[in-house]
Amino acid sequence: MKFTYQKTSRVDEQELTKIIGSLAGYQANLKDVINAGGYDSDEASINLPSDHELIYSVMQMTGKKKSPNLKYILIIGIGGSNLGTKAIYDALYGYYDVMRTERFPKMIFLDTQDADVLSNLSSLISSIADPNELLINAISKSGSTTETMANFEVVFDMLKDCFSSIADRIVFTTNVGSKLHGAGNNNGIDVLNLPEKVGGRYSIFSAVGLFPLALLGIDIEELMTNAVNIREICVNSQGVENPALVSASILYIQSQQGKNINDNFIFAPQLESMGKWYRQLMGESIGKDGKGITPTVSIGSTDLHSVGQLYLGGPKDKTTTFIYTEHSGEEIMVPQQTHLGLIEMIQGKSISSLMRAIVQGTKLAYEKQELPYMEIALESISVDEIATFMQFKMVEMMYLGKLFGVNTFDQPHVELYKIETKRILEES
Amino acid sequence: MKFTYQKTSRVDEQELTKIIGSLAGYQANLKDVINAGGYDSDEASINLPSDHELIYSVMQMTGKKKSPNLKYILIIGIGGSNLGTKAIYDALYGYYDVMRTERFPKMIFLDTQDADVLSNLSSLISSIADPNELLINAISKSGSTTETMANFEVVFDMLKDCFSSIADRIVFTTNVGSKLHGAGNNNGIDVLNLPEKVGGRYSIFSAVGLFPLALLGIDIEELMTNAVNIREICVNSQGVENPALVSASILYIQSQQGKNINDNFIFAPQLESMGKWYRQLMGESIGKDGKGITPTVSIGSTDLHSVGQLYLGGPKDKTTTFIYTEHSGEEIMVPQQTHLGLIEMIQGKSISSLMRAIVQGTKLAYEKQELPYMEIALESISVDEIATFMQFKMVEMMYLGKLFGVNTFDQPHVELYKIETKRILEES
Repeated sequence: MKFTYQKTSRVDEQELTKIIGSLAGYQANLKDVINAGGYDSDEASINLPSDHELIYSVMQMTGKKKSPNLKYILIIGIGGSNLGTKAIYDALYGYYDVMRTERFPKMIFLDTQDADVLSNLSSLISSIADPNELLINAISKSGSTTETMANFEVVFDMLKDCFSSIADRIVFTTNVGSKLHGAGNNNGIDVLNLPEKVGGRYSIFSAVGLFPLALLGIDIEELMTNAVNIREICVNSQGVENPALVSASILYIQSQQGKNINDNFIFAPQLESMGKWYRQLMGESIGKDGKGITPTVSIGSTDLHSVGQLYLGGPKDKTTTFIYTEHSGEEIMVPQQTHLGLIEMIQGKSISSLMRAIVQGTKLAYEKQELPYMEIALESISVDEIATFMQFKMVEMMYLGKLFGVNTFDQPHVELYKIETKRILEES
Repeated sequence: MKFTYQKTSRVDEQELTKIIGSLAGYQANLKDVINAGGYDSDEASINLPSDHELIYSVMQMTGKKKSPNLKYILIIGIGGSNLGTKAIYDALYGYYDVMRTERFPKMIFLDTQDADVLSNLSSLISSIADPNELLINAISKSGSTTETMANFEVVFDMLKDCFSSIADRIVFTTNVGSKLHGAGNNNGIDVLNLPEKVGGRYSIFSAVGLFPLALLGIDIEELMTNAVNIREICVNSQGVENPALVSASILYIQSQQGKNINDNFIFAPQLESMGKWYRQLMGESIGKDGKGITPTVSIGSTDLHSVGQLYLGGPKDKTTTFIYTEHSGEEIMVPQQTHLGLIEMIQGKSISSLMRAIVQGTKLAYEKQELPYMEIALESISVDEIATFMQFKMVEMMYLGKLFGVNTFDQPHVELYKIETKRILEES
């Protein structure tokens, strides 16, 4: 991962240095959290990547549950319980699932509640002959998430109709001592623990993300090593050498200058779910006390043909983070002699070089319009680069929350609609 | 479709009446365009739904190309060339494709350029034995869209390797007299015409949308009848009885009061692509001359667990359009006696009643926070309701463009990155 911001971010260097400097105390605090280890502080998630016991317990569970004919992993969870896993799954596999009918295991995500989705899922489940083809991971910190528990109960009902015994194909991921933890123990369902202080949007390197990823065959030890490496840079590097400090400071300065939108313009369609993971991270972490930045996700080059006009010609209310990859897995070439011969300049070019030209052209257009942007270049679309991006962004968000003067780790306003919904359900 | 705005939109009634009144001249103009018929004016797209010749030509082509064993329809096009079709396909089928492995035909959308996507597509194509299982529809107004032509050339190369003859499994949709039109004629490839004055974002009821939809077996005559019905209401109804006039006026008034974001909060995950279609419609139509509103798409209840905190507790910079459905296809119940028994209030409830309670709870929370919103209730997720929504929104956008005083039908700034990209490619 390469982070670039010079000049194009259009912030005053002195102002940037000042804001970065104001974070020195909090930076020292993050170091203390890492040195102390454990999961007692609000920033607890920062200690996940170096938790070897965690890796061991996830690998134990994976060994127990993985079967050679595993075809479908059903993730039942919403928000922080699935967005990180979905980001990585979609990047590596999910985006191609309709084209790769014979590749398994496929992951299916049940988050919100929808009768049509459940009815289609029911067809799929009844087509499964052997319970070992299926693994269900239900994830909820508390066990009181309405959507997750309703979806689990409906799915469990479907499973009961198809299989005589299914409990050993289910795993719960939850806080120690939660209602869901107790229910797992009472029903012979295995449970993975999530530390109380690790919030959903910071949980990708806990069992929430690691267990499903390990089931896919992803090397979670390597993943964690990558996360530790970038964590050290984001916590220990000084001043403008520290990408998390710089990125947070630029987002803050721009927001104070009226840019209330942070567009994450990702030139890789497979990474749209990664953008949505970041959207939660930023939305829930700093959107409070009347403050916040609205995160948006755009996909290049698709959205150049959609909202590109607005971005280049509309109000200057955004700061942009361009995200792109430097290399693709396989080179695909436009033939030297094209069949129709309509556009000369594409002949004999590789598809990735065309995309690089579009990224470059877009950056130049943004500069001409004096639109501020930062850049994140991923070496390739790999789990290690995505993990690096995620750990970088989680530390960035802690710095940004400090700059905004908010509690980065709570989400009190989510209760507002939950209270109303609960009242309606209890009365009906 | 039911549109509601009273009180919750938080605009002054007198102000609303004044703004609606200011559109009387343009409303008369739209009536004139319909009475004149044809495709000469900027608003030409409004005449598509009553074009019987168009329906006939699309049905002719569908009859010619449809085969009983059609398995994959490959749509090569970007922006306005695929967003409308994808909105309807995903709502009815696409969202479930991974769960419904045996349902065909499946639609695959190639829009941006990506080597990994093309490499996976290549695997799929080489698994196809009979060319009648495949239909390729390449769509470009001009035939000079880089991504579309590059993707077509690469795909054509793959096809040549697999089949001795493939031209009759390809259809081009393009302007009469375009380079692509000529290339179709020269290569024995059938061509469907798109009127010059119909821009991509207003083209869903042209051959661009109708042909792929007819291939899916959708009754395009009924679809067009629905579009005509809502068009008449949006053009002929007076004052607050006209949903397009009201919606445009509210969006305009709110934007003048500093709400620079219009969040389309859709409580139906299948309709995310419909939201993205609207995102282009609004982004490209009014995002110019330094003006515009940034359209965002949120999915309920998923995003209540993601950006809900920001929306309810962050800056009041948004006006929201809640979109939800009144009925689901099939009733799915949470068992009366749940297995885990963790949440009493969900027991014996239908999944759709739980979702309705969440929508209701969210609306109450927005009211408590004094956040303005409008509502669009779709009767169900059906092609007719989506077509109604789309025609309503296209007329709304014409009114909104008039209020903003911009050219609703051009997109001049998109050229900025294209010029730079072209220069880079020509130099490389």
